[in-house]
Amino acid sequence: MFKKSFLKDLAKKEKVKATFLEKQLEKGRVVIPLNRKREIPKPIAIGEGLKIKINANIGASTEETGIKDEIEKLKTAIEAGTDTVMDLTIGENLKKVRKEILKNCEVALGTVPIYEAAIEAEKKRGSFEKMTFDDIWGVLKSQAEQGVDFFTIHAGILKKALTTLKKKKRVGGIVSRGGAILARWMDVNKKENPLYGNFDKILELAKEYRMTLSLGDALRPGAIADSSDTLQMSELYVLGELVKKCRKKGVQVMVEGPGHIRLDEIALNMFLEKKICSHAPFYVLGPLPTDIAAGYDHITGAIGGTLAAFYGADFLCVVTPAEHLRHPSVQDIKEGVIASRIAAHSVDVLRFKDEWQKDLNLSLARAHRDWGKIFPLTLDEQKAKRYKGQNKTLSDICTMCGRYCSLKMLEKCNLLK
Amino acid sequence: MFKKSFLKDLAKKEKVKATFLEKQLEKGRVVIPLNRKREIPKPIAIGEGLKIKINANIGASTEETGIKDEIEKLKTAIEAGTDTVMDLTIGENLKKVRKEILKNCEVALGTVPIYEAAIEAEKKRGSFEKMTFDDIWGVLKSQAEQGVDFFTIHAGILKKALTTLKKKKRVGGIVSRGGAILARWMDVNKKENPLYGNFDKILELAKEYRMTLSLGDALRPGAIADSSDTLQMSELYVLGELVKKCRKKGVQVMVEGPGHIRLDEIALNMFLEKKICSHAPFYVLGPLPTDIAAGYDHITGAIGGTLAAFYGADFLCVVTPAEHLRHPSVQDIKEGVIASRIAAHSVDVLRFKDEWQKDLNLSLARAHRDWGKIFPLTLDEQKAKRYKGQNKTLSDICTMCGRYCSLKMLEKCNLLK
Repeated sequence: MFKKSFLKDLAKKEKVKATFLEKQLEKGRVVIPLNRKREIPKPIAIGEGLKIKINANIGASTEETGIKDEIEKLKTAIEAGTDTVMDLTIGENLKKVRKEILKNCEVALGTVPIYEAAIEAEKKRGSFEKMTFDDIWGVLKSQAEQGVDFFTIHAGILKKALTTLKKKKRVGGIVSRGGAILARWMDVNKKENPLYGNFDKILELAKEYRMTLSLGDALRPGAIADSSDTLQMSELYVLGELVKKCRKKGVQVMVEGPGHIRLDEIALNMFLEKKICSHAPFYVLGPLPTDIAAGYDHITGAIGGTLAAFYGADFLCVVTPAEHLRHPSVQDIKEGVIASRIAAHSVDVLRFKDEWQKDLNLSLARAHRDWGKIFPLTLDEQKAKRYKGQNKTLSDICTMCGRYCSLKMLEKCNLLK
Repeated sequence: MFKKSFLKDLAKKEKVKATFLEKQLEKGRVVIPLNRKREIPKPIAIGEGLKIKINANIGASTEETGIKDEIEKLKTAIEAGTDTVMDLTIGENLKKVRKEILKNCEVALGTVPIYEAAIEAEKKRGSFEKMTFDDIWGVLKSQAEQGVDFFTIHAGILKKALTTLKKKKRVGGIVSRGGAILARWMDVNKKENPLYGNFDKILELAKEYRMTLSLGDALRPGAIADSSDTLQMSELYVLGELVKKCRKKGVQVMVEGPGHIRLDEIALNMFLEKKICSHAPFYVLGPLPTDIAAGYDHITGAIGGTLAAFYGADFLCVVTPAEHLRHPSVQDIKEGVIASRIAAHSVDVLRFKDEWQKDLNLSLARAHRDWGKIFPLTLDEQKAKRYKGQNKTLSDICTMCGRYCSLKMLEKCNLLK
């Protein structure tokens, strides 16, 4: 699927053996989202045995349509250290935004094609509810040809789930935008999910372009009260079946996961996905262990994401401080990416020597207040410098302890390494 | 120790039965930091079976001496929801700052008296290295008389620890300011830790004023490479012995804990403290599972704090974004408190019905985009409003999804609760 030389280079970057990467790829425990049509400076692999990866969502909405803003978010996200980007644009400018993003995107790019299909149907037929599979198919083909590296496909939400949902309503309902579009469509048209019904066709396209499918969790809980409920779990079993179909066809596949999850159910959710979905890489949004922290959900997401990664998640989707409140700004994207990187690194540091070495180097420099070495080792050099810059004292200590710097006192006793 | 009526009221606030609170207090598994001389509008209890509590550190440093700033931080911390405050002032203005803080402090107040003792010794004798136990004793008495509710006492760092430290130097050395002062003092004077040697005397004072002692972990790791090392563990055993002494004397006691701890050692650290220190309430700083996030250590601390609380910590000390870089600003304090509240709440929500209800209420309001109900239910109403305020669309949806709001689509299908 990939050239030997490419895999060799990638394995080196991932700090694993090339044979290990190949084996994991073969088993489907690792995916490399990279469209056959694209070449990018920063490809990555995602899955078991590799470093935790991060995705940042950008894209215009129906209300915030600026292309320039989205390109700035793209650059900011990459600079802050995201491993992939998803363009979630929904609205008029959709095609233009994606074209510009693809042009500027050094990392793997994902989309949710049902958004464009909905917008197209709205334009052609007045409403996304009148969307046909041909609309969807047209979008899938054009995006694949354009070079999109991975698609979120919400093929796991079935008509019968709506029956369950009608009987036993959830606190948070359906919070997946793609999921809600499909739910509404199924409800109006009284038909099965077209992505499920036409999954084989989608597989052929994915195979042709060497795309990775990311099976969307349309029924992810949007409130911790709905955490690990029947709807979520039933969908996971459908996704497990679809993973098998992908593998049989030789299509790379990962699985998307929640969402709002009680803290004491995060580990269980990770184990279940690995079990039910045959160890397909797990791509989680958060999870958020509480619903009440709007404005700070990058922190809530970092808490849940750390636990998720520790227990088996492979890929963390950034949650920004804007989540639940507004379309994210450039600064929101940056804060979200950094928070997710803290989550990922807190786990990677336990598993990879080079990650451990980062903390070790920084702490040794910190003990000696060697700021010239400290700054470039922090996650956000500019912020660290800006904070320390307000220091009014001698350069080696900071304003926190001043002349009662514990490390300086220790140095005098020759108690430092 | 406390009046029945006081305990009854406090139990009500804590949402537990008064008999439970009394029993836990008797066993020493819960403490109520409240000096006999003080009455405060917001007393709290800390320990097993109660909600997780939060402490915010404020106080001037030798470089940042503004009293007005510290009072603003105090008010901000309380408004943001801290349960207690510690005045960690070290520097000239120490007495004045504490007096002002005590006057304005609606919550329990803690201090680290060795700071004032060091400053006094510096004034009287030119250096803190010349400090005598009389200096310390004078400070302890005057602060107790002033009404301080709890003291951090670094009685667990012993001379022999310095011998160990000299042989096997740590990556992060000693990062506790109080610990470093005592280490330096012991090293220069070739004497045992005066707080350890005079612990019985300190107990009498604490008993007299009904103060709570917080046994400081002078040897907490300051780098994850030092996580759970011999020095940290040896000190914990000393603290375990001191807990027994406190209990015997009828003095309330809690134990302070790390610090920089590997993610996979957080649970173990909580279990060990409970075991070795006879289930004394555990008061942790962070813990921080990585060293490299300076500028964002409120997030690192929230990650570690959540795990710590889940596995048994009772009391979380706020880490601000300024940690490792500068004396914290008012905004830093606020961000730190909110991050710690997310950590605490993520665990409390699993244990207390009224906490669970908060998430439930918010999520029900969110499903119906009832912003008037949503805002006051979020952790930071003002920030949530400010973010949502930038919405340019119809008031019930936000700029994130615009007219493709998943919840609005669901509502049309009658799929919402």
